[in-house]
Amino acid sequence: MTKSEVCVDWKELQKFTSEMFVKQGCSAEDAETEAEVLVWANLRGIDSHGVLRIPEYVKTIAAGEMNPKPNINVVKETAATVLIDGDFALGPVVTTQVMRMVMKKAGEVGIGWGLIRNTTHQGAMGYYSLMAATEGMAGIAIVCSQPNMAPHGARTKGVHNSPITIAVPAKRHSPPVIDMATSVAAGGKITLAVDKGISVPQGWILDQDGNPTTDPNQYAMLLPSGGPKGSGLAMMFECLTSLMATNSLLAPVLLENKHFGRYVQNSVVAAVDVGTFTDLEDYKEHVDNLIDAIKGLPPADGVDEIFVPGEPEIRIYRDRIRNGIPLPEGTVRNLRAVAEEFDVSLPFGM
Amino acid sequence: MTKSEVCVDWKELQKFTSEMFVKQGCSAEDAETEAEVLVWANLRGIDSHGVLRIPEYVKTIAAGEMNPKPNINVVKETAATVLIDGDFALGPVVTTQVMRMVMKKAGEVGIGWGLIRNTTHQGAMGYYSLMAATEGMAGIAIVCSQPNMAPHGARTKGVHNSPITIAVPAKRHSPPVIDMATSVAAGGKITLAVDKGISVPQGWILDQDGNPTTDPNQYAMLLPSGGPKGSGLAMMFECLTSLMATNSLLAPVLLENKHFGRYVQNSVVAAVDVGTFTDLEDYKEHVDNLIDAIKGLPPADGVDEIFVPGEPEIRIYRDRIRNGIPLPEGTVRNLRAVAEEFDVSLPFGM
Repeated sequence: MTKSEVCVDWKELQKFTSEMFVKQGCSAEDAETEAEVLVWANLRGIDSHGVLRIPEYVKTIAAGEMNPKPNINVVKETAATVLIDGDFALGPVVTTQVMRMVMKKAGEVGIGWGLIRNTTHQGAMGYYSLMAATEGMAGIAIVCSQPNMAPHGARTKGVHNSPITIAVPAKRHSPPVIDMATSVAAGGKITLAVDKGISVPQGWILDQDGNPTTDPNQYAMLLPSGGPKGSGLAMMFECLTSLMATNSLLAPVLLENKHFGRYVQNSVVAAVDVGTFTDLEDYKEHVDNLIDAIKGLPPADGVDEIFVPGEPEIRIYRDRIRNGIPLPEGTVRNLRAVAEEFDVSLPFGM
Repeated sequence: MTKSEVCVDWKELQKFTSEMFVKQGCSAEDAETEAEVLVWANLRGIDSHGVLRIPEYVKTIAAGEMNPKPNINVVKETAATVLIDGDFALGPVVTTQVMRMVMKKAGEVGIGWGLIRNTTHQGAMGYYSLMAATEGMAGIAIVCSQPNMAPHGARTKGVHNSPITIAVPAKRHSPPVIDMATSVAAGGKITLAVDKGISVPQGWILDQDGNPTTDPNQYAMLLPSGGPKGSGLAMMFECLTSLMATNSLLAPVLLENKHFGRYVQNSVVAAVDVGTFTDLEDYKEHVDNLIDAIKGLPPADGVDEIFVPGEPEIRIYRDRIRNGIPLPEGTVRNLRAVAEEFDVSLPFGM
């Protein structure tokens, strides 16, 4: 923690966040859900998806682009699947609801596969896959949105750097969870480089003319991880998600220069019930063994410890749940401003 | 085609392949399935997964490790899921069967999610996802096997470079299909570099001491695509597939130095029915539009054309279905040997 940072108790930060969203017109329950998902991201060190988003969300709600009183609506449903229209709800509000629906289906028929169309920013997606993992299921989620990444071989934006998350239950260990963008680097890392005044590695981004750059101030689009791999996954995710939900987000922008006039996301949210296939307690032990096995491998030169997916975040979580969440000066300043505007008490120390 | 290659009609090659597998004890139907999947790979230019595998499969069957008369058996089943024990069947025999089962389930409840344990080499996985795509469904498949890739940060093998394939239906265009390993390069590319006497790029492989090398003769393990991304996906795929099917393939090797004594694969095979969520004909048009949109982007310097997933293979397919499949001298020599051993007539030109 640098001198310019303050450290805030997570419970106080969550209470503050919840109150902020009640003031935006959300129900107490929805505000609590939003607050929990945002502060969870901070607790795990995913600060780009944490409370720094509050001022942006407040503006988005004021502009009518994010709906604090959504009419979340089941469009289609079977024993194993559901298609939900999110009515531009706050992402966590609709996504937690759909994860609970697909977990119920998974408990009945082994798998639940949900599609959400017209949600807004969903926060850190690992939250949702872990909802399933902590209930004895594998959780899977995919996000699609408007173009921000150059497809392999292109010099303009054509796909979204759609992330995928997968989590599974464990016993002695925390449930392993992967939450990865299909780009080399997540967008938040570019913003961070700008804030820190440092350059980014070659191969992360292109400038607005489609030329490679290491200057994050020239950032216009992301590059795909593994070239055709990240690029191809992102395109296939749009097909599995947006096109399946009748809510195309890439082609209208590219072919018709359509401006959606708002930020919109579509999503796959799925759960697979472990107990349908094998004994859950045995399964958890096998996951533990796999974690032990991978962590026990001899490390490469210069590597102190091998991490499994989600493990670095768990370490941060354990620290922050006890010692508080450090917030940089800029975030604190922005939160103070919206707190004052909406007459909400700041957490102690802010 | 170099001078040392011969060019063979695909139908003759398929007939030859089928006859070879009948001689190994397969039923006529199973032999035909195996032949179709192998020759399909050759037609699409995925020669590493084509008929060059026949001599290896013949040996594997003789050793009792691949079962030409399997008792393929439903272990667990729900309306949406199925767990199959493959009894070490030829991969295509069990995988086509399970893809048909999950497509039937998808037609009924929107999704079918199948797990196969104890299958042998499944060939080119895109074949199975495309089975779904040509019937109006999205097809998904994942493969897990024994360790051949260093997890991110490790200097020994710890995960398999588990591939994933996704295909969806299209109308004017061929169905897009991604079929990608979680390693930087597929294993077949290392073998090819050895055969050609060329080096491989830095970052593809490690030698047996876990040091980076560009010499394919020193190849001991693959490296993951995107570092922690490919590595993490491979580990999570083992959790979704092998551990869910009660057939762990990584931890026993790493923790107990277990030798399976045979090559074994587990697999997810899934189908999502487009018509359950949206109008199929509209969907196909949206996929076409997305393909057009991405192909229409301005290309990067030095790029002639932007390809969508599966497109390079379709071009090769169109050429080879008409002009024949070129087989290198080594492959021809090996096929002649097994043809003679089992008294099977070679295709014209071989």
